[in-house]
Amino acid sequence: MATQGQVITCKAAVAWEPNKPLVIEDVQVAPPQAGEVRVKILFTALCHTDAYTWSGKDPEGLFPCILGHEAAGIVESVGEGVTEVQPGDHVIPCYQAECRECKFCKSGKTNLCGKVRAATGVGVMMNDRKSRFSVNGKPIYHFMGTSTFSQYTVVHDVSVAKIDPQAPLDKVCLLGCGVPTGLGAVWNTAKVESGSIVAVFGLGTVGLAVAEGAKAAGASRIIGIDIDSKKFDTAKNFGVTEFVNPKDHDKPIQQVIVDLTDGGVDYSFECIGNVSVMRAALECCHKGWGTSVIVGVAASGQEISTRPFQLVTGRVWKGTAFGGFKSRSQVPWLVDKYMKKEIKVDEYITHNLTLLDINKAFDLMHEGGCLRCVLKTQD
Amino acid sequence: MATQGQVITCKAAVAWEPNKPLVIEDVQVAPPQAGEVRVKILFTALCHTDAYTWSGKDPEGLFPCILGHEAAGIVESVGEGVTEVQPGDHVIPCYQAECRECKFCKSGKTNLCGKVRAATGVGVMMNDRKSRFSVNGKPIYHFMGTSTFSQYTVVHDVSVAKIDPQAPLDKVCLLGCGVPTGLGAVWNTAKVESGSIVAVFGLGTVGLAVAEGAKAAGASRIIGIDIDSKKFDTAKNFGVTEFVNPKDHDKPIQQVIVDLTDGGVDYSFECIGNVSVMRAALECCHKGWGTSVIVGVAASGQEISTRPFQLVTGRVWKGTAFGGFKSRSQVPWLVDKYMKKEIKVDEYITHNLTLLDINKAFDLMHEGGCLRCVLKTQD
Repeated sequence: MATQGQVITCKAAVAWEPNKPLVIEDVQVAPPQAGEVRVKILFTALCHTDAYTWSGKDPEGLFPCILGHEAAGIVESVGEGVTEVQPGDHVIPCYQAECRECKFCKSGKTNLCGKVRAATGVGVMMNDRKSRFSVNGKPIYHFMGTSTFSQYTVVHDVSVAKIDPQAPLDKVCLLGCGVPTGLGAVWNTAKVESGSIVAVFGLGTVGLAVAEGAKAAGASRIIGIDIDSKKFDTAKNFGVTEFVNPKDHDKPIQQVIVDLTDGGVDYSFECIGNVSVMRAALECCHKGWGTSVIVGVAASGQEISTRPFQLVTGRVWKGTAFGGFKSRSQVPWLVDKYMKKEIKVDEYITHNLTLLDINKAFDLMHEGGCLRCVLKTQD
Repeated sequence: MATQGQVITCKAAVAWEPNKPLVIEDVQVAPPQAGEVRVKILFTALCHTDAYTWSGKDPEGLFPCILGHEAAGIVESVGEGVTEVQPGDHVIPCYQAECRECKFCKSGKTNLCGKVRAATGVGVMMNDRKSRFSVNGKPIYHFMGTSTFSQYTVVHDVSVAKIDPQAPLDKVCLLGCGVPTGLGAVWNTAKVESGSIVAVFGLGTVGLAVAEGAKAAGASRIIGIDIDSKKFDTAKNFGVTEFVNPKDHDKPIQQVIVDLTDGGVDYSFECIGNVSVMRAALECCHKGWGTSVIVGVAASGQEISTRPFQLVTGRVWKGTAFGGFKSRSQVPWLVDKYMKKEIKVDEYITHNLTLLDINKAFDLMHEGGCLRCVLKTQD
């Protein structure tokens, strides 16, 4: 291809400083080095983790940077030694890498991968510990190893999943983060069984995906908890069978749920990132076996707590990252499930804008009616 | 038998007030009512839970009471409707009941039983919500549904395990609490696999039983952590392969263990009841899969805490009560394993005294060299 081996100048949304509007800049994207893949991003969605780092509250956040981690695109070129994808392949960038070689990947017990974390955690590429992005010669940090708020990005080859070229990229971009996180929390982390009673705290995209996953697993009751009662109508479509608004009750929400379920739920999921809610989610679980999964990401420095008696009497406290899915192996499987209409994706998309409107998209995220806003990144 | 249906007057150690020496009294023990069993206790050991309630720090502790929950004896008589044991049977009282009928017992997911908890939790028998113990007409509360610091006690039929009459009661009394708690934490709660790296915090009876269970499960490394280095020699005999004394290190103990194990242990067990150690035990687990089990009982009101990131990155926090063993079903199985020399029991007994010396036995418990002190209760 004409651009292969060349620096590409394209549009990207740069976060120059925390909590300041992103700026659409002409960004120079260097060619991929060994083990790297340059991807033409066609569609990207926004997720709360982008907003969290943008806000400046993420102590690992580095500026200036290009945010974004839920996207889909087409491989433009590949660096030396890259064998699993080639130019033209349709792909989803994966912030959770999968190298299949490290201690984590080989363990069979986790989807976390250790190979590129030391580089992606500090906003650079592993090969030379430098960024591939620059604006007028000034380096711009990568974010989560994906940086999808750009018309072109460079990712490690272990951080990109090749998918069915028939899949609509404006939809399956959502399979890069939120939807798999919710589904996998139920299927992989909690392993919800048929007949279970489930509580979902927070009915955003991830919470609704938990409900969808629980319904598919055969849960008998799916209790949705949110302080915005307007979310219930939408939540019903994803499988929520009962709705509880903590504002309607004087008792602690864990007690409300325990009373409602003759002793507590079998599984609960915290999909907000609020440490008080994490405690409530654990404590609304049934004595003897209830399992609570932390899905939401809490702000830095915050801590969860409970009485140890909660665990000694049989409750289990777990967490999940990317729903326990192995990214390169299982994102293509999720795309296939979507193509067979076995999982929802379209229904999570409430807004469509272009990359130029990204600041408006951030504003929308904080509105109750917005689940996912998908940005078209190419003209 | 001559005593059947009669009040028995016998010796018992009564805790009249918190934190005051127990007093050996002539106690009247009423006959068993429907669903109850009167047991002649031959041997009882002391456990830290007895000392905890005795200290007055247990908010559920009721006085005056007869403590004790790790014992063995012979059924003296049974109340109406009791079918599974009869006079002369050798038994171990079980503070963790097993009715086989309640929601918990039927779940297949827990060893907790709900049937008699409402009565045993407040020191009485379920049938008439009264005590079977009195001194000169003054009722004395039961404790944990067992009250084994007495020559005779009355327990619910769901709280007594019939065992091999050949088993030496002065030894297998230990299978009423501490040893099964440690073994079961490994086998039932954590399900430690062969080749695992295990950390055990606290090398008392329960911690040593964890080590013994981990060795039997094929753990490759068993790291014992205790602030008393003198315990290491004994600990070796139970399977501990390495010893770490937190006092020898400036770094937090979780960091010491992580450094020692290339990222953390596969399983950790807190066998002390200290909430700071519970946190360390979780945080010394390996990212991605490390599981920490709380075995120790913390003082009332104390809380555990950690950053949720610890769980989101794959660690699991659990707890265990009586090691997850179903008491009436599995205590006899543990006795059989002891008789076949598949588990240790004798090795945990460091002292032998009589019921009359019980206050001395409490003093001994706080000495480093004491694991279990077994009291002969009959003359």
